[in-house]
Amino acid sequence: MRSVVALAGGVGGAKLALGFSQTLDPDELTVIINTADDDRFYGLHVSPDLDTVMYTLAGVSNVEMGWGLQDESFRVLGKLKEYGADAWFNLGDLDLATHLFRTQMMDEGKTLTEVCAKLTEALGVRHKLLPATDDSIRTMVQTDDGIMPFQEYFVKNRCEPIVKSIDFEGSQNCRITKEAKESLMDMDLLVFCPSNPFLSLAPILAVPGFRKIVQSYSGKSVAVSPIVGGKAIKGPAAKILKELGHDVSSLGVARQYVGLCNTFIIDEIDASMKQNIESLGMEVFVTKTVMETNQDKKQLAEFILDISA
Amino acid sequence: MRSVVALAGGVGGAKLALGFSQTLDPDELTVIINTADDDRFYGLHVSPDLDTVMYTLAGVSNVEMGWGLQDESFRVLGKLKEYGADAWFNLGDLDLATHLFRTQMMDEGKTLTEVCAKLTEALGVRHKLLPATDDSIRTMVQTDDGIMPFQEYFVKNRCEPIVKSIDFEGSQNCRITKEAKESLMDMDLLVFCPSNPFLSLAPILAVPGFRKIVQSYSGKSVAVSPIVGGKAIKGPAAKILKELGHDVSSLGVARQYVGLCNTFIIDEIDASMKQNIESLGMEVFVTKTVMETNQDKKQLAEFILDISA
Repeated sequence: MRSVVALAGGVGGAKLALGFSQTLDPDELTVIINTADDDRFYGLHVSPDLDTVMYTLAGVSNVEMGWGLQDESFRVLGKLKEYGADAWFNLGDLDLATHLFRTQMMDEGKTLTEVCAKLTEALGVRHKLLPATDDSIRTMVQTDDGIMPFQEYFVKNRCEPIVKSIDFEGSQNCRITKEAKESLMDMDLLVFCPSNPFLSLAPILAVPGFRKIVQSYSGKSVAVSPIVGGKAIKGPAAKILKELGHDVSSLGVARQYVGLCNTFIIDEIDASMKQNIESLGMEVFVTKTVMETNQDKKQLAEFILDISA
Repeated sequence: MRSVVALAGGVGGAKLALGFSQTLDPDELTVIINTADDDRFYGLHVSPDLDTVMYTLAGVSNVEMGWGLQDESFRVLGKLKEYGADAWFNLGDLDLATHLFRTQMMDEGKTLTEVCAKLTEALGVRHKLLPATDDSIRTMVQTDDGIMPFQEYFVKNRCEPIVKSIDFEGSQNCRITKEAKESLMDMDLLVFCPSNPFLSLAPILAVPGFRKIVQSYSGKSVAVSPIVGGKAIKGPAAKILKELGHDVSSLGVARQYVGLCNTFIIDEIDASMKQNIESLGMEVFVTKTVMETNQDKKQLAEFILDISA
């Protein structure tokens, strides 16, 4: 029996988490998911990364759109636009039910962790999905076009503004959940999913106490590079690496994880970087990291389990 | 030029308001609408009576359902039920957009009056629709099955519990809006629409100062009985009259309006009650009050305007 903790953001993290879920029993895997992208729209609490991972593991995610649910419609949003709403944040009808349900439960005093457990149960997801904190933490992106919350940067402005720095509002005061802490204490493998290191995994590590537990953990910790051949599989990781002055490469990513993980996985296309990354003090493995099919996801998960057995 | 103020609840009030809107210019009619049925569902502010009147005047109300919008679907609600939500309050997909828009605007600090103006404008409603107050007022129904908010009595329990008394929570502290007050000060005709006197019009009159203005108003004030032939056209008016110990008749309704209006309109079927109601000190007119077609609505509105010319 394993005890694997995977840190994940949205799509990239969800893919590898799905791979693990096809290999590990429900009590062998905990996915800790970024909630600093959460925001409120029309009074509703929206948790994009939690939902992406949850929908992916439930097998109901909308792969074409890259977010939300299959068989989605947009009647509510269409009507909101008729009302003159500045409806730049996409909300599908079925997806809205998730946000309404979450908001109602939170209004009733339930924590995000409890809501997550209830939703995953309803969707038939048996592996544990957790936020790192039940408190508010909010990614604020300082750009050449001013400071803005993540969704405004990501969705409204399509990641176009140049990033100067990234802050996690509320990270001083938020508390790690009991559930997240327990899973970290019990783990025999920690995985940094191929998510954006600055936008997806950094806010998880910014929850007070989280980074310290990771740093003092002496077992196997494996990161998978979200940069392959100098490009991000999805999202603004490459653009942000560049704008923040880092190498736009697996090496540039690996440097973010020095002191946090001891093993780094790069794609075959980046095999030439192996030595450079090893010189950071990490063990480096080369394999196919691009996950297109379900089989790809499972294989990468199994590869990680094998090298850390 | 007339200056008509109509007090209205949901469907019955909306019908007569539509009749007036087909006869009067936009600046000649203000409809003041009950907001004590408002409630929150899934974090959203829902205003059933405001919406019914608004949708009716916009020509987009769902006549078959008796609430909500035409061409409605229920994808969001269906998904909420899959999540295990206790989804007893019906929310259509298009209708949800109204509640989301309202909640967002109110979260941004807009008043219900301002939201109403924005929504009616978007829907092409040119006559003025107003809440009596922008503050919270909430109908609480004391029944043999305990005390419950209006929607729980009306929708969840289908008006089945026996009503002992009705209170309007917040009515001590809510304030009449400037807009509602100005329309009352300017009016040359006040109409009590054929709405439930206890559940729809009483909470409007319960807003501090409202009843006093109505009582001191010396012009024409006309009430239309919502009870015809001993029965309510729609809703629990007859049942509540009985449970509160009143005559289940136009006479029983008229007694609720003594000191508030000087003219009472009954249906032809109730012509025999004319003298009894006159003995309450009201002028009584007999006409067809059941509004089935649009023509019926316009005719009743014109009848009221004629007798108060």
